[in-house]
Amino acid sequence: MTTAIAVNGAAGRMGRTVIETAAERDGVEVVVGFHATDAGEIGGVPVVGSGEAADALAEYEVDAVVDFSVPEAALSVADACVEAEVPLVVGTTGFDGDSFDALEAASDEIPLLKATNFSRGIQVLLRTVREAVGALDGYDLELMETHHNEKVDAPSGTANTILETIQEERDVEPVYGREGHAPRDDDEIGVFARRAGDVRGEHELVLAGNDEVLNLSHRAEDRGVFAAGALDAAVWLADRGDGWHEFDEVIDAE
Amino acid sequence: MTTAIAVNGAAGRMGRTVIETAAERDGVEVVVGFHATDAGEIGGVPVVGSGEAADALAEYEVDAVVDFSVPEAALSVADACVEAEVPLVVGTTGFDGDSFDALEAASDEIPLLKATNFSRGIQVLLRTVREAVGALDGYDLELMETHHNEKVDAPSGTANTILETIQEERDVEPVYGREGHAPRDDDEIGVFARRAGDVRGEHELVLAGNDEVLNLSHRAEDRGVFAAGALDAAVWLADRGDGWHEFDEVIDAE
Amino acid sequence: MTTAIAVNGAAGRMGRTVIETAAERDGVEVVVGFHATDAGEIGGVPVVGSGEAADALAEYEVDAVVDFSVPEAALSVADACVEAEVPLVVGTTGFDGDSFDALEAASDEIPLLKATNFSRGIQVLLRTVREAVGALDGYDLELMETHHNEKVDAPSGTANTILETIQEERDVEPVYGREGHAPRDDDEIGVFARRAGDVRGEHELVLAGNDEVLNLSHRAEDRGVFAAGALDAAVWLADRGDGWHEFDEVIDAE
Amino acid sequence: MTTAIAVNGAAGRMGRTVIETAAERDGVEVVVGFHATDAGEIGGVPVVGSGEAADALAEYEVDAVVDFSVPEAALSVADACVEAEVPLVVGTTGFDGDSFDALEAASDEIPLLKATNFSRGIQVLLRTVREAVGALDGYDLELMETHHNEKVDAPSGTANTILETIQEERDVEPVYGREGHAPRDDDEIGVFARRAGDVRGEHELVLAGNDEVLNLSHRAEDRGVFAAGALDAAVWLADRGDGWHEFDEVIDAE
Repeated sequence: MTTAIAVNGAAGRMGRTVIETAAERDGVEVVVGFHATDAGEIGGVPVVGSGEAADALAEYEVDAVVDFSVPEAALSVADACVEAEVPLVVGTTGFDGDSFDALEAASDEIPLLKATNFSRGIQVLLRTVREAVGALDGYDLELMETHHNEKVDAPSGTANTILETIQEERDVEPVYGREGHAPRDDDEIGVFARRAGDVRGEHELVLAGNDEVLNLSHRAEDRGVFAAGALDAAVWLADRGDGWHEFDEVIDAE
Repeated sequence: MTTAIAVNGAAGRMGRTVIETAAERDGVEVVVGFHATDAGEIGGVPVVGSGEAADALAEYEVDAVVDFSVPEAALSVADACVEAEVPLVVGTTGFDGDSFDALEAASDEIPLLKATNFSRGIQVLLRTVREAVGALDGYDLELMETHHNEKVDAPSGTANTILETIQEERDVEPVYGREGHAPRDDDEIGVFARRAGDVRGEHELVLAGNDEVLNLSHRAEDRGVFAAGALDAAVWLADRGDGWHEFDEVIDAE
Repeated sequence: MTTAIAVNGAAGRMGRTVIETAAERDGVEVVVGFHATDAGEIGGVPVVGSGEAADALAEYEVDAVVDFSVPEAALSVADACVEAEVPLVVGTTGFDGDSFDALEAASDEIPLLKATNFSRGIQVLLRTVREAVGALDGYDLELMETHHNEKVDAPSGTANTILETIQEERDVEPVYGREGHAPRDDDEIGVFARRAGDVRGEHELVLAGNDEVLNLSHRAEDRGVFAAGALDAAVWLADRGDGWHEFDEVIDAE
Repeated sequence: MTTAIAVNGAAGRMGRTVIETAAERDGVEVVVGFHATDAGEIGGVPVVGSGEAADALAEYEVDAVVDFSVPEAALSVADACVEAEVPLVVGTTGFDGDSFDALEAASDEIPLLKATNFSRGIQVLLRTVREAVGALDGYDLELMETHHNEKVDAPSGTANTILETIQEERDVEPVYGREGHAPRDDDEIGVFARRAGDVRGEHELVLAGNDEVLNLSHRAEDRGVFAAGALDAAVWLADRGDGWHEFDEVIDAE
């Protein structure tokens, strides 16, 4: 059985990647895309203006929508999903309080899943980090991420998520560099951001003590990894009940 | 409070390492060692013949014994422990059916903990492996270990333990090399043994799929890591009830 | 100054990648593509049938041609280049004796550069391998490569090139796996091929001895790396004299 | 043929390691040690007071001296070496201008080799760094080192040496951390110091660009690596003429 997907923000970078990624997979088919303006066709998929989304959801018999756009456009497609009773996967970020509330309200009427990182590997990394930090009490922790040289913020959002996950287990204070006389405190964690070439995204946690080193790391090869996760979420969400869902549930379901 | 430790097999390589490791730690003190023959003194610790073990346990007010010897010597010190009612940590390997039964019988009368690998990091690695293999269904798995060039068996015992842990989660068949036309089966796992220089011991599991790679790895810096784990076990065991205990319990207790 | 490039095999996977890669770079512009049949337009570049290549080279004032096609098509474009006196970069592989001779003959009349791997990083890796293997006499060598799970031959062509480079410095015999009783010979080199997920291509040489490990490794993030190298070669070749050139010269020129 | 070695600073940490390392090697034998005060015997080697060094060099027919002590003691043993005409390998650091001049003066009368890092692997790493940085113009460079949690200065001396080697090839400015809005400059190099557990010492240079990453790294497994290098130097120096020698010559000689 094939799940019919609509992509909101179809002409954007992530939207295009979702269309490409779906084309190489069995079990999913992107049947229509939405964009601010009628964009013709992308990768063989018809793309219609956002205003026609509700009608198109019915016409194309869409099973689930994947959204990578901006908050305003995401709320607009959420309205269309509610009207057409179609589940919605939201990958858009940057919602403020009011727009987030509106999204939550939509989840009362349709299955809705929102995530900031659709990498299954990163979700699993976070679980192994929690497990290892909890079990290796007293081991030193050092966190490093590497991204391409155009990334201007440091550390990455995912590195911050890893740090927060660690801090739920242990009371550590980040230091972001060491130079000169820099004795290490027991409750310190070094957090380093390398910027080099075209690296897609690497994250590595080192746990060291007792003459041993445990290393937990993740590397994204391509932004296709996030598209793949969003498609997994869409297939899963197509069979769910109304309400707010998390990406973690998708992984556990497998 | 300091835990008083006796080391069985005190003049052996691991016995000496336990004595050295304890000397650098708070909370534990090796007060006496046993060896096949009276060995005088090692690292400042008096070492007496195995025949005098029972008397020495009482005389030195030993809280727990750590054994790294051979099966026969391990059973002999187990008898002494039963007689003196002292907990016993067994790091010796190679027990056959009968000698293993005898060890189990001893655990009816004293707290006894037996393990084949006292590295806390390896135990935690196994947990993260189980977690990740379970959650990343369909990802390819490849296992690699690296050891010094004198190691003659391949893969390492720990690599085999990792493989068994994976096989509890998923039905994979190991291949130990690839050359020529070698298409990969979905249920295949590459298991590779590098032998180089003085490497103490590295193990790495790669999980790859969906344009991402998760990497779980462990490195021993020194055989001190195993001595440290055995001492952790001894401190923990000193307060336990009679019965058979596992190293996993020591880690969870922290 | 911008170098005007023509791409032969423009509708193929590598041809398209060259067009995409050039679009993101300063100093080069793909002005025309050739393919077996007139392919219309690719990435905004007009693509004409191979038969019109000679005319198109003049019409578009092409400074250099980049070819990723098949031997027959490569020889055909070589003829066009000779006719139009335009330098030619050949990335096509699989030439037999006769077709190779024909290519060499063309290099008497135009600047011609042929390479099997246009990654600058791989070329530099080979240099560091030669340097390190020569200087660390007696250290154990172990070679590993990792590629996606669809690659059916093992080890990779690049791994074989690394092995040959090592063998120019030292007499080592490859073993492709280790299992069971497997004592290491001094003149042995382990060569391992991991196959996992979507990994683009990694190569790693370990040199270990004297309680230390030197590690030389390379990772391709994307097939764009090879397109970038071919474009570098084309820019460089545009100013060269007639004759046969090697990719190594391009790197040294910088 | 066996080279007879004397160790100055025999009771210190490095002195003891030299004695241990030599005991496991063919071709060298530590026949006597010197220390501030008569230290009896270390690892089966007689250790005499520094004042008796000149006499002992003759008595034990020493071929070369290895010194790991403090500047004052190093100069004292240099005098003894000059008197007895024995080559001297100096691993001591921290000489000021005057004491350095005195050392240089000694090299007019005996073969003298001074180095700050006796790891052959680090020397070879530096050569590959020079080669790669020179050949990969325009690639981003990021340098990282990892050491145990007791190391209070950052970055390590070896990391600084790597940085200086890079700066001979390219004009880069180090940044020692990144946090918040931190766009990368083209002529920037990130230099990061991780501090964790008991890590002996790791150094890694990443060169990234054009969708590829070259990685050159070194790991010390044990301080034995430095002892081994000093012994290599001593064997080599025993056959050299008077004058000042560098560790690089030892590697090239092999």
